[in-house]
Amino acid sequence: MEFSNKVKDLKGSAIREILKASADPSVISFAGGNPAPELFPAREFAKISENMFLNNPAESLQYSITEGLPRLINKVCELTADNIRDYDKTIIVSGSQQGIELTAKVLINEGDTVICEEPSFIGALNAFRSYGAKLAGISMDDDGMNMEELEEVLKKTPHVKLIYTIPTFQNPSGKTMSLEKRIKLVELAKKYDVLIYEDNPYGEISFTGETYPTIKSFDDRGMVIYGGSFSKILAPGIRVGFLTGREDIVSKIVICKQASDVHTNVVCQNLVCGYLESFDLSNHIKKVRKLYKERCETMLEAMAKYFPECVTYTVPKGGLFIWCTVNGGTDTQVLAKKCSEKKVVFVPGSTFMTDQSKLCSSFRLNFSSMPPQKIEKGIKVLGEALAEILN
Amino acid sequence: MEFSNKVKDLKGSAIREILKASADPSVISFAGGNPAPELFPAREFAKISENMFLNNPAESLQYSITEGLPRLINKVCELTADNIRDYDKTIIVSGSQQGIELTAKVLINEGDTVICEEPSFIGALNAFRSYGAKLAGISMDDDGMNMEELEEVLKKTPHVKLIYTIPTFQNPSGKTMSLEKRIKLVELAKKYDVLIYEDNPYGEISFTGETYPTIKSFDDRGMVIYGGSFSKILAPGIRVGFLTGREDIVSKIVICKQASDVHTNVVCQNLVCGYLESFDLSNHIKKVRKLYKERCETMLEAMAKYFPECVTYTVPKGGLFIWCTVNGGTDTQVLAKKCSEKKVVFVPGSTFMTDQSKLCSSFRLNFSSMPPQKIEKGIKVLGEALAEILN
Repeated sequence: MEFSNKVKDLKGSAIREILKASADPSVISFAGGNPAPELFPAREFAKISENMFLNNPAESLQYSITEGLPRLINKVCELTADNIRDYDKTIIVSGSQQGIELTAKVLINEGDTVICEEPSFIGALNAFRSYGAKLAGISMDDDGMNMEELEEVLKKTPHVKLIYTIPTFQNPSGKTMSLEKRIKLVELAKKYDVLIYEDNPYGEISFTGETYPTIKSFDDRGMVIYGGSFSKILAPGIRVGFLTGREDIVSKIVICKQASDVHTNVVCQNLVCGYLESFDLSNHIKKVRKLYKERCETMLEAMAKYFPECVTYTVPKGGLFIWCTVNGGTDTQVLAKKCSEKKVVFVPGSTFMTDQSKLCSSFRLNFSSMPPQKIEKGIKVLGEALAEILN
Repeated sequence: MEFSNKVKDLKGSAIREILKASADPSVISFAGGNPAPELFPAREFAKISENMFLNNPAESLQYSITEGLPRLINKVCELTADNIRDYDKTIIVSGSQQGIELTAKVLINEGDTVICEEPSFIGALNAFRSYGAKLAGISMDDDGMNMEELEEVLKKTPHVKLIYTIPTFQNPSGKTMSLEKRIKLVELAKKYDVLIYEDNPYGEISFTGETYPTIKSFDDRGMVIYGGSFSKILAPGIRVGFLTGREDIVSKIVICKQASDVHTNVVCQNLVCGYLESFDLSNHIKKVRKLYKERCETMLEAMAKYFPECVTYTVPKGGLFIWCTVNGGTDTQVLAKKCSEKKVVFVPGSTFMTDQSKLCSSFRLNFSSMPPQKIEKGIKVLGEALAEILN
């Protein structure tokens, strides 16, 4: 028995392994991208599910169409109206991860190149790797991907199939792409005839209330596939996301989704749809923003207090993550191991790199999942470990 | 923009297109594999979900591990204890379709061959096609795959990666593989070092109460990957299935599942787990068997009454389907079109073939989803259309 060429060297996400280890409730975890469980709309879901199972069970329990529950698609199209053009089609996917994986499947031949931010979301990088893609990482300025470097890579690289970006409150860097760069990115995509995948799971979680026009909203030629998610604003365990793109591309994605899981589970599609129809999503998003802003501030204050001065970090305007960088030469895998022994876990930066074997002096901290006291306590432990390693 | 080589010629399942057309409630559908909605455990699910959302919402709404909810895995392992060896690992998948797709992903390079029954389940055939597999169909005797033909193909074909089989109450043929052939199949798999995928969604739906040992239970060398499903015995809209196989293979499947949908939605994993923990599955299965046996008998009686004598068909001992064959030379696509105009739909046999472009004189009838009066009425329409075409 031999595995296929495309997957034989594929490794699991280090994050998910760290998360397994951190099931121990005494561990302080800054590792995952877990939303705060106190924000889950559990009472609302209880009401919706009672109604669903007692009044119209067959809609949620029978086979459904691959594209998704029509009522939910309509609601999603209302929510993201700015993104959608005449030639577009919107479908429901089993979490935005599936949107990325199916896009990879329909576009990538083994050896093709996908361009991404460096660092980037490991789930996406692994989806591309799982189809044998080469990854070309583009460094990030404070306002997103470096456009000169991007154009250089586009110029010199054959078989580039996709530019993958998380423009708003990026994972893991916490950075947001400027308006100018969003427009420029669409221009480059047209010039070099390369599609863009805009992954936007965090866009609503703005601490200032300021929101950013999507890259998709600048696209007048169907170059952008847009992926959205309910994982961070409602709950991730339901696995409901969506994808909007040019009809010909999305129709091929639907055919592959049919072969992948037939359709997204209808029970959770109905939970989301019931929530959007009967409850106030924008009010709920306000609560999410407020809580995560507080936790981000708590973490930043603790970092100012406990981190050695040579550690720099982003101050995100939204999202779930802070990206920290230690003096060059510090291996943050060693740091992570040291902290894990003290029951504080986070993800070393190498995890998010196109070449994971290179030494990396950065690491990612999540602030959404732990209450303030644990954030303060965990950052103190981390600060002490940093001081030890740097001395 | 160009699609990847593996998917560019991939077409959607004709069945799912027919199903879309049959959303009209006045249509009598023998097309899908839909379970009877009156059997869905909706009241039980209502109780389980109330408890889930009010007492322990985070377990179902937070991110979970890719392998599946540990409590559910334990329950599945209890249910299928005969199948499982020391070297095996069991995971939860998003419907058994996902188990097939991920197995294809980890094993198949473009141009490799997958051996299957002819006819076979289109969802599986499309999953293999979506990775660029060549399909080699083996004719079926009344007691399953022809073993001489299978060995010939194994002998002469390079790069055979998998033998895909639905041994019990097969879709679409309704046939069941004999004990002798199950044992022989494992022998051949060992001799030619080719893995078997045993797909068993219908095994529990036995009309006589007789059950058949799985192929996996004869496997002492880890040659069989076993896929099971709750779609036909509980409900398909929840998308919960499972897969058992050798630890090294299943671990690679887990890595690919992580890149595909992170994990199966936990809400529905909890619904199934709650059902298995607090309700009586074997009693429920008795109800399923009884209803489908009645519907199958109703259909067979109507066929005896209304079908021209030259139409032959299988008399299944379980499952959801009857396979009909008309005089050679009759194109059942034409028949299907004619009946669809009269609001009776079913699936022409070519859909289930490795080469869908060849003329096919067979068709598949589903008896699980329609009540007896509609079965009788639909078969009458179909019988009349057959008589017209044959005259």
